[in-house]
Amino acid sequence: MMNTEKRRLEVCLSPAIYDKHAHDDNLVVVIDVLRATSSICTAFANGVERIIPVATVEEARSKKEAGYTVASERDGYVLDFADFGNSPFNFTAEKVKGKEIVYSTTNGTRCIHMASHSREVLIGSFLNLSALAEYLIAQDAPVLLFCASWKDRFSLEDTVCAGALAELLLKSGKFDSICDAVTASIDLWSLAKDDLNSYSLKAAQKGRLASKGLDDCMEFCHQIDFTNLIPYYTDGILLAKTIGGSKN
Amino acid sequence: MMNTEKRRLEVCLSPAIYDKHAHDDNLVVVIDVLRATSSICTAFANGVERIIPVATVEEARSKKEAGYTVASERDGYVLDFADFGNSPFNFTAEKVKGKEIVYSTTNGTRCIHMASHSREVLIGSFLNLSALAEYLIAQDAPVLLFCASWKDRFSLEDTVCAGALAELLLKSGKFDSICDAVTASIDLWSLAKDDLNSYSLKAAQKGRLASKGLDDCMEFCHQIDFTNLIPYYTDGILLAKTIGGSKN
Repeated sequence: MMNTEKRRLEVCLSPAIYDKHAHDDNLVVVIDVLRATSSICTAFANGVERIIPVATVEEARSKKEAGYTVASERDGYVLDFADFGNSPFNFTAEKVKGKEIVYSTTNGTRCIHMASHSREVLIGSFLNLSALAEYLIAQDAPVLLFCASWKDRFSLEDTVCAGALAELLLKSGKFDSICDAVTASIDLWSLAKDDLNSYSLKAAQKGRLASKGLDDCMEFCHQIDFTNLIPYYTDGILLAKTIGGSKN
Repeated sequence: MMNTEKRRLEVCLSPAIYDKHAHDDNLVVVIDVLRATSSICTAFANGVERIIPVATVEEARSKKEAGYTVASERDGYVLDFADFGNSPFNFTAEKVKGKEIVYSTTNGTRCIHMASHSREVLIGSFLNLSALAEYLIAQDAPVLLFCASWKDRFSLEDTVCAGALAELLLKSGKFDSICDAVTASIDLWSLAKDDLNSYSLKAAQKGRLASKGLDDCMEFCHQIDFTNLIPYYTDGILLAKTIGGSKN
């Protein structure tokens, strides 16, 4: 028997509001466009085997001492013990293919852990937008798009990405929303989509990255459908699947 | 000596994020378009002397027992002991002129109390938009537009109102913003402003009010510049001033 009831779609604009949106049956998509979830999607597209997300510098350091390849920055500066920083450009096939790597990110890891009670935790970005939408539409559970934001503050680029995804989901006819954050994110996406690269320059995070010379990835991170892989969180690690369920 | 440094402008989208925006030197504008701050502006426009905002039903009841006129609802239903509910249409000159009344609102009162450490706490809505902008521009302190939201969730109508105000403040040339919530609220206002009444129908709060027959105030609450009075909070009560500082 087909379930004809429409599924709940919500957008959470900050980890500080997450508990208002949390449901155990949610499929949660964590979105941190600049740069955690874009980098994770890039790493899988370039053949990484698995990623261990860690929140603290101490965890990252102890993983390095245990022999892992570690990507780790704090406030835009690569930590002395790390192999490289958090830019998606660091996750080249040469560096990550076939490997298990450790990725240290305060915000992204925190959101993944916060959502880990949910049915599924998926990693979203512009880079895997269509694959993610197709996957979510094919499931049978409510969806929460969870913007990682910046230190709990609203983040423009994450919200625009959530809007792009929300628009695709609502167009499928399988979802319903009475969430103002869905409405706002779709409206912001409607303003951004014709020239996403120009619009993205308005984001405060662009300035933060630029002040450290790290904004070279802006255009790359706003590229739609670079990969069809959908990273997901399970038992402390990130793996990736395609819509069909197998890894590329 | 004139202070030529631009002042900080931020928008806080939910009480859950307030602590990230809080500064003692802020001029804070609490915005709860549907309906608390619209009703407060209406009450002062209709000659109320002062308003005592209370958060709990118990406080409202004890004020009623002490002889006050009390406006109080919970979930859209007028409390049995109250004189009337929270719609701006209840605050007629006949009922409020020259009086001290008690207004019970969970969200609005909570936001006012949260912000009470600040330099000033002002009450904002579409109804006093231009007067408020003019007042804020004439001061010499950073400004935080504080959306009361709905149970900590993002609220479309409060954000659009914050955007309208933010646009006026930035146009003055006296403010600077690196806050994504300012950018987003102005962009949402830009989509809404040509037909504010139609746009406001998208707000989830419209549906919540309509389900209780309380959405008759939608158009009124989206009326720009109904009054030039600026309610403000001081020592537990709300009073109002005009730009010049005197009460109408």
